[in-house]
Amino acid sequence: MRERNSDHRQPGKRARRDEGRPFGDKHRAGKAKAAPWRGTPRDRDGTAVLYGWHTVKAALENPQRRFHRLLATENAARRLTDDRVTFPIAPMLVRPEDIAAIAGATAVHQGLYAEADPLASPELEDVATDGIVVVLDQITDPHNFGAILRSAAAFAVTAVVTTERHSPQASGVLAKAASGALEYVPIVTVVNLARALDELHELNTFLVGLDSGGDADLAAMPLSAPLALVIGAEGKGLRHLTRVHCDAIARLALPGRITSLNVSNATALALYVASAKLAAPG
Amino acid sequence: MRERNSDHRQPGKRARRDEGRPFGDKHRAGKAKAAPWRGTPRDRDGTAVLYGWHTVKAALENPQRRFHRLLATENAARRLTDDRVTFPIAPMLVRPEDIAAIAGATAVHQGLYAEADPLASPELEDVATDGIVVVLDQITDPHNFGAILRSAAAFAVTAVVTTERHSPQASGVLAKAASGALEYVPIVTVVNLARALDELHELNTFLVGLDSGGDADLAAMPLSAPLALVIGAEGKGLRHLTRVHCDAIARLALPGRITSLNVSNATALALYVASAKLAAPG
Repeated sequence: MRERNSDHRQPGKRARRDEGRPFGDKHRAGKAKAAPWRGTPRDRDGTAVLYGWHTVKAALENPQRRFHRLLATENAARRLTDDRVTFPIAPMLVRPEDIAAIAGATAVHQGLYAEADPLASPELEDVATDGIVVVLDQITDPHNFGAILRSAAAFAVTAVVTTERHSPQASGVLAKAASGALEYVPIVTVVNLARALDELHELNTFLVGLDSGGDADLAAMPLSAPLALVIGAEGKGLRHLTRVHCDAIARLALPGRITSLNVSNATALALYVASAKLAAPG
Repeated sequence: MRERNSDHRQPGKRARRDEGRPFGDKHRAGKAKAAPWRGTPRDRDGTAVLYGWHTVKAALENPQRRFHRLLATENAARRLTDDRVTFPIAPMLVRPEDIAAIAGATAVHQGLYAEADPLASPELEDVATDGIVVVLDQITDPHNFGAILRSAAAFAVTAVVTTERHSPQASGVLAKAASGALEYVPIVTVVNLARALDELHELNTFLVGLDSGGDADLAAMPLSAPLALVIGAEGKGLRHLTRVHCDAIARLALPGRITSLNVSNATALALYVASAKLAAPG
């Protein structure tokens, strides 16, 4: 673990924050005595950074998570205990500003910060055998990706499929936006999306690509499970090779002057429409 | 108009970017000759900053907009002309990096940048007399606010009502996320939200607050136009005074382990459900 002032994202800022801080001063004498919660977030070397109440609470409740460290304010630790959440790792009790110094001033950490191993990516055939799968074709914005995961958990999606490249890490901003959904929805990371769509096809999945210029209204389309909703990136949309692998291209019926939604909004709507159709008798 | 290197958001960055840049060098000799597109974005003093293809194109097509300046790359200007968009102000032709230097390196400007007067806030009674109104109770995140505006335009909402304080400016990130919707959806800015809800009530509006812990499923609730969907902030939800002013509190039926969505996703879903119900006969 790297110690001391090594937050090179905000050069100068950490040093200023430390001045006159009792906790900082106490540990300033020797390198070995640096506060144990010091150190840079390690998402760049494959560690998942998790902060925010729902995000960390859900992770603590997930027996699959392996934690490296957990920082909590006294209040947050008490709230967890009140909620009967047990600690798989001893929390270091810190002050809110100590978390802000690591997670960044804009991170809404709500008194909880953890570093853990990323969750393993399961095999497609083990998770995507029924219900709805969401396939993301190069959604790079972590806010959108996180919000989509959250909606996927809300609609009990069986898995989210994404590419190894051109996807944000399941960490930090994405994890916060997912609001705990990282622990509920398996993320299948694939090297080649077209091949994954082929595989879904072999699993009898009906593949529907979503596009504002699609041929038919999703709500008017016959749908059956297992179903894959394939979502293209904001701006670029579905890539050609992704598109030709779909069984149908659907749009959402929008009556107004704008006919395409934010990608996470569109996904939530598609999940609502598809869930309702799959649940309806007949 | 302030000239020259006055972008105090990114101190040092502009200076570095200017080094060896032909356009910059050419104009370095005298203060009076500074490139005319120089200057800081002026959203802090009440000017709307607009960038991105859809955002600027929609603004150029809006006869209500009063522009201070328009920057365009040659490509973007040509695309506008191809799309038969006329220029209410002469565009200054610049290079993409010139826009990035003003709008910020992370702004997806797509070759277009404009500064304009903000649009006027209409009176509630002039806009919210039929259909659906969206009322925002202190949504502070500009991405969410912008995405909500975009969905509001997609669902042909008559107006978005928001508070003067605790709302982001209709500019920059919000305008980009709205993807042109700023020009399509009137934003009614009010000082006191409770009083605005009273006024909507007097206009015979049925007021439905949205809350994941709501009494009834929005889809199962009898709805009638004019209808107001009242949306609380992420985390905090509806404030008490807002809540007691609503005729009903509704939730969205979500079958999964997470029962609350990102606020813009929830709004998009509520708009879909409400639009479908109002459009249905009976």
